[in-house]
Amino acid sequence: MDNTFGTIFRITSFGESHGEIVGIILDGVPAGLNFDLDFIQNELNRRKPGQSFVTTNRLEQDRVRVLSGIFNNKTTGAPICLLIENKDIDSSIYTKYKNYLRPSHVDYTALTKYGGFSDFRGSGRFSGRITAGFVMAGAVAKQILEKYDIFIFAYTKSIGNIRDEENYLLGEIKNLHEIREKSLVRSINPEKAKLMEELIEKVKNQKDSMGGTIKCIVFNFPKGKGGPIFNSLESRISKAIFAIPAIKGIEFGAGFKASTMKGSEHNDPWILKDGRIQTSKNDAGGIIGGISTGMPIEFTVAVKPTASIGIPQKTVNIEKMENVEVEFSGRHDPCIVPRIVSVIEAMTANVLLDCLLIEGYIPRIIDF
Amino acid sequence: MDNTFGTIFRITSFGESHGEIVGIILDGVPAGLNFDLDFIQNELNRRKPGQSFVTTNRLEQDRVRVLSGIFNNKTTGAPICLLIENKDIDSSIYTKYKNYLRPSHVDYTALTKYGGFSDFRGSGRFSGRITAGFVMAGAVAKQILEKYDIFIFAYTKSIGNIRDEENYLLGEIKNLHEIREKSLVRSINPEKAKLMEELIEKVKNQKDSMGGTIKCIVFNFPKGKGGPIFNSLESRISKAIFAIPAIKGIEFGAGFKASTMKGSEHNDPWILKDGRIQTSKNDAGGIIGGISTGMPIEFTVAVKPTASIGIPQKTVNIEKMENVEVEFSGRHDPCIVPRIVSVIEAMTANVLLDCLLIEGYIPRIIDF
Amino acid sequence: MDNTFGTIFRITSFGESHGEIVGIILDGVPAGLNFDLDFIQNELNRRKPGQSFVTTNRLEQDRVRVLSGIFNNKTTGAPICLLIENKDIDSSIYTKYKNYLRPSHVDYTALTKYGGFSDFRGSGRFSGRITAGFVMAGAVAKQILEKYDIFIFAYTKSIGNIRDEENYLLGEIKNLHEIREKSLVRSINPEKAKLMEELIEKVKNQKDSMGGTIKCIVFNFPKGKGGPIFNSLESRISKAIFAIPAIKGIEFGAGFKASTMKGSEHNDPWILKDGRIQTSKNDAGGIIGGISTGMPIEFTVAVKPTASIGIPQKTVNIEKMENVEVEFSGRHDPCIVPRIVSVIEAMTANVLLDCLLIEGYIPRIIDF
Amino acid sequence: MDNTFGTIFRITSFGESHGEIVGIILDGVPAGLNFDLDFIQNELNRRKPGQSFVTTNRLEQDRVRVLSGIFNNKTTGAPICLLIENKDIDSSIYTKYKNYLRPSHVDYTALTKYGGFSDFRGSGRFSGRITAGFVMAGAVAKQILEKYDIFIFAYTKSIGNIRDEENYLLGEIKNLHEIREKSLVRSINPEKAKLMEELIEKVKNQKDSMGGTIKCIVFNFPKGKGGPIFNSLESRISKAIFAIPAIKGIEFGAGFKASTMKGSEHNDPWILKDGRIQTSKNDAGGIIGGISTGMPIEFTVAVKPTASIGIPQKTVNIEKMENVEVEFSGRHDPCIVPRIVSVIEAMTANVLLDCLLIEGYIPRIIDF
Repeated sequence: MDNTFGTIFRITSFGESHGEIVGIILDGVPAGLNFDLDFIQNELNRRKPGQSFVTTNRLEQDRVRVLSGIFNNKTTGAPICLLIENKDIDSSIYTKYKNYLRPSHVDYTALTKYGGFSDFRGSGRFSGRITAGFVMAGAVAKQILEKYDIFIFAYTKSIGNIRDEENYLLGEIKNLHEIREKSLVRSINPEKAKLMEELIEKVKNQKDSMGGTIKCIVFNFPKGKGGPIFNSLESRISKAIFAIPAIKGIEFGAGFKASTMKGSEHNDPWILKDGRIQTSKNDAGGIIGGISTGMPIEFTVAVKPTASIGIPQKTVNIEKMENVEVEFSGRHDPCIVPRIVSVIEAMTANVLLDCLLIEGYIPRIIDF
Repeated sequence: MDNTFGTIFRITSFGESHGEIVGIILDGVPAGLNFDLDFIQNELNRRKPGQSFVTTNRLEQDRVRVLSGIFNNKTTGAPICLLIENKDIDSSIYTKYKNYLRPSHVDYTALTKYGGFSDFRGSGRFSGRITAGFVMAGAVAKQILEKYDIFIFAYTKSIGNIRDEENYLLGEIKNLHEIREKSLVRSINPEKAKLMEELIEKVKNQKDSMGGTIKCIVFNFPKGKGGPIFNSLESRISKAIFAIPAIKGIEFGAGFKASTMKGSEHNDPWILKDGRIQTSKNDAGGIIGGISTGMPIEFTVAVKPTASIGIPQKTVNIEKMENVEVEFSGRHDPCIVPRIVSVIEAMTANVLLDCLLIEGYIPRIIDF
Repeated sequence: MDNTFGTIFRITSFGESHGEIVGIILDGVPAGLNFDLDFIQNELNRRKPGQSFVTTNRLEQDRVRVLSGIFNNKTTGAPICLLIENKDIDSSIYTKYKNYLRPSHVDYTALTKYGGFSDFRGSGRFSGRITAGFVMAGAVAKQILEKYDIFIFAYTKSIGNIRDEENYLLGEIKNLHEIREKSLVRSINPEKAKLMEELIEKVKNQKDSMGGTIKCIVFNFPKGKGGPIFNSLESRISKAIFAIPAIKGIEFGAGFKASTMKGSEHNDPWILKDGRIQTSKNDAGGIIGGISTGMPIEFTVAVKPTASIGIPQKTVNIEKMENVEVEFSGRHDPCIVPRIVSVIEAMTANVLLDCLLIEGYIPRIIDF
Repeated sequence: MDNTFGTIFRITSFGESHGEIVGIILDGVPAGLNFDLDFIQNELNRRKPGQSFVTTNRLEQDRVRVLSGIFNNKTTGAPICLLIENKDIDSSIYTKYKNYLRPSHVDYTALTKYGGFSDFRGSGRFSGRITAGFVMAGAVAKQILEKYDIFIFAYTKSIGNIRDEENYLLGEIKNLHEIREKSLVRSINPEKAKLMEELIEKVKNQKDSMGGTIKCIVFNFPKGKGGPIFNSLESRISKAIFAIPAIKGIEFGAGFKASTMKGSEHNDPWILKDGRIQTSKNDAGGIIGGISTGMPIEFTVAVKPTASIGIPQKTVNIEKMENVEVEFSGRHDPCIVPRIVSVIEAMTANVLLDCLLIEGYIPRIIDF
């Protein structure tokens, strides 16, 4: 049950960082969708390693391969299997550090859960590389959602203490796609982007790493969808998002700030505008009672700094059972935030497509 | 699927705020547990309305009633049905305001989702009163977890900007239970508690409301439990917690603060101490790679201010389809945080018991 | 997970034979259905004990009580809790035989599964009485399906070796409803019915019991529904049907007879008739590849003879651990087949409504 | 949801008959199992096409390939992806008959469910070839179950009206494995086997096909496992078995024969023998109240005759919408029963391993 997500649109993740492949099965994709491999490849390229100095220098082509589920270039309703291969593998350092618990890495928890049998090379199943599968699935989900005019847009809101506090609207955001993709840090604020890059460069030179936050907005999600109680949109989205390694917090709308607000400040007044019932602001983040209001769904996630750093760290040698200090070497991202942006979008697309299939809003046969 | 939670330990919620009852079915409770009704009643009393000036003045006895699943005062392995009755019901004001969308309330989302057929009295299924069922289930889960030495403790960390920033350890916390229960705001810091009470009284006098945060700590949760990827402990806990109305954010360990930290600051060094592998601090919140480290599981949630306030608000009359300003009257909590503390503990108990049953850590027959 | 069934339309069963109540929670019922309590009561009356000499003489009124989910006499989309009370309880004999394993009864399996903690009175959770909950749920499901012109009709096909081999068509069947309800054995063939009654009377006088088969037909189920592989209609229906105590076999269409047929005999030719593609016969039972063909769904189930008989039987005294022979007394049905007819219909309605909600064929808001 | 089965041990099926591959993902396999590829290959060879004149002459090597989840030749706890390739593909005839609905084939139901987008070549997802994935998963499940002394054995009980009515015991059966594998029809009764082969040869010469039945016995399954109500062992096993194309019926223990028996004949007396509580016969098929008794689990399934035959058949040309008679040519099994034997064992292993993991009977880390 650990590796499958969703009810009707169901994704099953498999593969390891230093195994042969990383893959994903997509079950429940409506039949009749034009299968656009380029779209998937583009999404994958957005999270690819080796894009710039802010990312790891592992070099992977990450070419999508399709094993099943497509016929005459259309989805058939059958499960789709998508793969990428692992090529630039160097497992030597993992063998070298095999007896040391890397701080804030899964070495110890994987050891206790799997009794020492898990594949530790490149963190195996726990590697961020697994999220390439989420992105491939999300690319398919996105294509369908976009046919229903639903757009998902995530961007880097902060790196360390450099923050982009602006509220972006749909009109603007659409034009900012290109700016974001050109930004090494996936910011849509060129001024802040520059500061963020400088900060990452600085910590990189210190062999250290840095965290950040990502904001995600879903435009045109239909009102009255989602569910109460255990299937609230917040429950579903948070479950999806916490599948991504390095995420340590999520907040919807005003989020933690809401805890410092009065009701009279926080409440979003209803207004009738252009014949449509809406709210004049969106501190609810587009969700009330677990159900969509028709306003944009907005949430922000906290990304911890990459656990892999080149600075000596205190830890335990589990073979000799003694306290030690070790300088771990290896390839890693000084800041993982920019690469997670596309993963956040992908998991959001995955969970929301599932939601709309469950509700019967999107049919099981489409043709576009 | 909206009203059932869990895989092996499964709870099913039913009832409405102004209906006959609020209830919960507990499926998968191990057979052989001494059924301690007083324990359940005590937990329920902790979230009961009408406790003090910081809570609503709706008066409910909330006496637990057992309909099934118990024999010779032991759990039998069969589903347990627990109920409380609704007695102090006054639905008149809901009828009065039927055509107005209360800001940041479910009126509009329930209307769009259920086509106007939902029970709007007292917010029906969306009322915080539904969480009484969560608490009854959680009381049973807690009893079992405590037999395995696992303790869950939540408390009010902040009301508005009044914050209790202290880190509490197991030894202390256990002694603080009584202090917390005596505190109207469920704080364990008497000094801060006083300030929090004053703040709530102030906003209450303004006919306004106030948000806050709650911290929850799980002590002695065994290491190596939980799962990777889609069943990470963060995924499961957040899914459970966002079932509670008014929660708008959750963060684990350092949480959002981690986004401003360097890896060298955030990483928790492993140390060998008392023959046990542990970390010297716990910014990970007891979870790495979705799996428990053996350190306390720690998370904080953001609670929005109660949507119900007595100040005039802008909204829409949906019958006449016109913008209006309305002063909604009615009974409500000026700050819901203190009553949510026990609900947070309960949902945490529910999800963690399920986790340990899935892992086979807690057996299906117990006898204590 | 043992007591919840379904994905979108989800029923949760609770209660015991000699406990306070038997109940069911219905989650996922579309909002807006006129709630017809009489319809539910009528369905329940069809399985009620004490109807005639062919059934047990336990006397229960089985009046449905509604605890939640209904407002203004309409379903609201919230979970519906339905209950009946247990009144004519005589647990004395169960205490008397507590140390004896009744042959082909759950005494031993319940003992091993629940470690002796289960409620053994009247077979507790394992009693056929639990199926009253299935029938209450099924009555709601049937009302919805009938609005979509889908009719479910089950009848007694055989008691012992007295068999009704006729193939009934929709037109006929509809007129046979009354005949069936007047038949003590729920047969629609008055001639066979007489023989069946005589057979049951005979075994009853011998303090023995008798098995039989029930045929169920679903008319007008839409084509192209259900699923391939693990969600085949046969998989779903059989899972639902085997929840009913005493069922030991199920076959679809030609069923076991198909195993003796050649392909040229078994294959159903496709024909174009009245502008509609159909098959000229229906050995497939309306299902090919797990998906509905648009022809009636047809299946037959085998019901074992009631395990409770008044004849001395060999068994084990588990207290003294010795082989013994015991004559168990008590109330029971000499043949349970007639009362199971309505339960088969109910579970079929429950599983097919869920199927059509999953497919988006039936919407989440209705109004009739 | 259509292509994933199980709760803790979860298999996800993908691939098409004439696509690139047929595959399966195994999630929840305990960590630490020696990965025996030969065992899997052997199981696969048992269902391989082209074994003899009783099977199709499609020639496939069906070499298992492992893409993930194995490290140092042990299972790691991560999902295992297993594949076979499709090589001997001839899709020409499927294109030729594209506009004709093959009787009792999925052409029409797939068309209505997937709107004409499904891959019709070789029946695509609906091909029996998909069950190769079930067998690969089942081979892993079997290895684990056998470590716990649980053995699953299926054999051909009948072809047409040639029946092997003998009751086999564990001691015997183990010795009959080789006899079965040498039998072209997978019978363990050499005399009957000869008659069965002759019958198949006869129908093959008539360009026709023949059905049959398969009996499956599970030895040493622990008592007190499975569940009541919706998770009865019969519910779970039948759900698993009906995932196999061509199965039209299932009966447990005495099954349909029980419908003609009196309680005094059908009831299995409990006896104390060798210090163990057991029944003196096993008409219950090892399951009472949905829970295992400790006696062998026994069930029989009905397999319909292969739908593909070479005799002219009535059908519809869906392009011209007219009634026609067509002689479909192509490769096929004159009797699919012998090849399904290993698939029945596999799906039984899959569902029972899941059951024992859910119950915590088999742990999540093993080492053998």
